[in-house]
Amino acid sequence: MSKPLILVVNDDGITAPGIKALVEAVHDLGEVVVVAPDSPQSGMGHAITINKPLRLREMHLFDGVKSYQCSGTPVDCVKLAVDKVLHRTPDLCVSGINHGSNSSINIIYSGTMSAAVEASLEGIPSVGFSLLDYSYEADFSAAKMYARFVAEMVLKYGQPKHSLLNVNIPKGEFKEIKGLKICRQANAKWEEEYMERLDPMGKPYYWLTGKFVNYDKGQDTDEWALANGFVSVVPVQHDLTAHHVIPLINETWDLEAVANIGNRTAGGEAFNS
Amino acid sequence: MSKPLILVVNDDGITAPGIKALVEAVHDLGEVVVVAPDSPQSGMGHAITINKPLRLREMHLFDGVKSYQCSGTPVDCVKLAVDKVLHRTPDLCVSGINHGSNSSINIIYSGTMSAAVEASLEGIPSVGFSLLDYSYEADFSAAKMYARFVAEMVLKYGQPKHSLLNVNIPKGEFKEIKGLKICRQANAKWEEEYMERLDPMGKPYYWLTGKFVNYDKGQDTDEWALANGFVSVVPVQHDLTAHHVIPLINETWDLEAVANIGNRTAGGEAFNS
Repeated sequence: MSKPLILVVNDDGITAPGIKALVEAVHDLGEVVVVAPDSPQSGMGHAITINKPLRLREMHLFDGVKSYQCSGTPVDCVKLAVDKVLHRTPDLCVSGINHGSNSSINIIYSGTMSAAVEASLEGIPSVGFSLLDYSYEADFSAAKMYARFVAEMVLKYGQPKHSLLNVNIPKGEFKEIKGLKICRQANAKWEEEYMERLDPMGKPYYWLTGKFVNYDKGQDTDEWALANGFVSVVPVQHDLTAHHVIPLINETWDLEAVANIGNRTAGGEAFNS
Repeated sequence: MSKPLILVVNDDGITAPGIKALVEAVHDLGEVVVVAPDSPQSGMGHAITINKPLRLREMHLFDGVKSYQCSGTPVDCVKLAVDKVLHRTPDLCVSGINHGSNSSINIIYSGTMSAAVEASLEGIPSVGFSLLDYSYEADFSAAKMYARFVAEMVLKYGQPKHSLLNVNIPKGEFKEIKGLKICRQANAKWEEEYMERLDPMGKPYYWLTGKFVNYDKGQDTDEWALANGFVSVVPVQHDLTAHHVIPLINETWDLEAVANIGNRTAGGEAFNS
């Protein structure tokens, strides 16, 4: 049996300490290939590059591990890796280790998680890893052990189709971490407040700031696990349908009126603009 | 009772014909305010601007409707509108009308839909609209009628918490469209193929191309509805948890082994790099 093929991606860029930690964590579990952005791409979500071409350059950053930097987003890296770099579909894609949390709703803004989602769309078992420490000098030692464990479990037991994993690791030494919990995504959000400043010309500009607020009192969430010293593992899907809402709309909307909307005169007039 | 406050956003930019069509469709349903990107932002997904400040400028593009252009992504537009432009939380956010489909998995790459998702995260009833016609000169007349109908339904009946709607409208005249169906997201994906070319220096660059493939044979999907001449309405949620996978992992993984991963010597060694 051939060695598993493992694709490593991230969003902090190929020179970030977090991706080096992830390569170290999984490098002897298979043949590892790194394709990562040439610059930081935090907050890029599921952005893809449509209107300009991408560049790909082989790098020599990791001993015995092929690595490439890409001029695009984290999702571009996965697409380009699958189409142009790898000789076959990988057995596993690991993304990260992100410098900072991607728990709860952060998944939706995260380039790290979007890369993992894209790999899952390509049919690749896939995991995104994040450490709850934004510092460049963060201690990744415990995160590496958990990343390796999760990668081993996914290689050993596989992953249900159309799903992937979002793994967040608390800050701190291994002995301070209480274990690992399989969780659901907490209902939490960012309450934004833009800082308004004036430029030298007297014109305003706005910096994004914000406060993370957890509305979820459940003890089965990722936020609860992390606040209580556990690694959180959230299975994620890319069917975004709110299935429970379909019958609600069919029951309430005036669907029989649709046939007549073409006869209405009100609304839809062209503007004088 | 005061008039409903309606926020209009998009991803094709404030000068796109699609947003003008959407403003025309809803302008007499309430007080309409437009906050949209100053340049095209297709494929930006849920990207947010973190590392640079944003600009906001009042425009006079729509008769009797306040409008602002923003230097950021579609999601930035919603965040900035809620925090800095609007005097209260809007009663409805409508995004689009996008030039091109956002059915099925396209929702995940779409700036139009990410803006609608962000509004929903802010607690605003929210709908994204897309017309299956990429042309700048597309005929939005039928799309406007359906957009108005859906906006009226959401204003009249509200929207379940933590959900929003993804509405796609077939190309063609109103009389060619068969009606409207409440659907689930089809299981489909893009099969990428990057076009490889050489620049004048002889170095390769890659353009994203791809083929949309629908694997889903169900007749309750958005792809089925659109292929059969119906407007598709998919309720969307932002809890990405694959709830059905949680018990599967708890049953199969060697979770009792987690306590001992700190004692292992294999793996996680630092690289000589």
